[in-house]
Amino acid sequence: MNGLHLTAELNECAAKALLAEPAALRALCLAAVAEAGLTPVGELFHHFAPGGGITGVVLLAESHLAVHTWPELGAVTLDVYVCNLSADNSGRAERVVAALEAAFAPGRRHGQRLQRGTPAGRR
Amino acid sequence: MNGLHLTAELNECAAKALLAEPAALRALCLAAVAEAGLTPVGELFHHFAPGGGITGVVLLAESHLAVHTWPELGAVTLDVYVCNLSADNSGRAERVVAALEAAFAPGRRHGQRLQRGTPAGRR
Repeated sequence: MNGLHLTAELNECAAKALLAEPAALRALCLAAVAEAGLTPVGELFHHFAPGGGITGVVLLAESHLAVHTWPELGAVTLDVYVCNLSADNSGRAERVVAALEAAFAPGRRHGQRLQRGTPAGRR
Repeated sequence: MNGLHLTAELNECAAKALLAEPAALRALCLAAVAEAGLTPVGELFHHFAPGGGITGVVLLAESHLAVHTWPELGAVTLDVYVCNLSADNSGRAERVVAALEAAFAPGRRHGQRLQRGTPAGRR
């Protein structure tokens, strides 16, 4: 199954409310997915404690978005994984990451880009 | 936020029921997480159609496990992401992937190991 997995670690995030308010984080994630043209099929957000971190996922027809926040550190990690079975969803994945990063407004960030799938000719 | 993210693409899976039965897949994932000593805080499994693929996640105190299945292709993709904030959970992540791979019994597999976090000295 070929696909693209984007990860990002965001630090010194200016948008502190998004890191500690599940409803705001959920709305942001669903809006980013919809605006990118991806298809949500379920979502789950867990709040570890009032004012504390959140772990959330949006399940997609194309795979998933996952977000973890640490408001006490101003830190967020992002994953957007899209399979490219019936269409190339790479551009959509890039748009989700860009929208989320713009919203969190990190002072510094580190992203990685993982091509997934079995390399040609390899068993 | 430093952490380890393991991915795997499994093909020619012998354990076909696990790819198309959400209850069986859910039980497998929760057992693998528990046996590895990780802490589930929520889970969500979506079945695309009877006999069809499943997308599932287990949210963890340590981050998440995600599984996507394509029974029509005999294919599964796995993600286990653990943050190493208060403890090194790398060995636990390895154990989850090993347990899931043993259960799916793929004819071929391709795994990747992604170290996550902001590299030292980089902004």
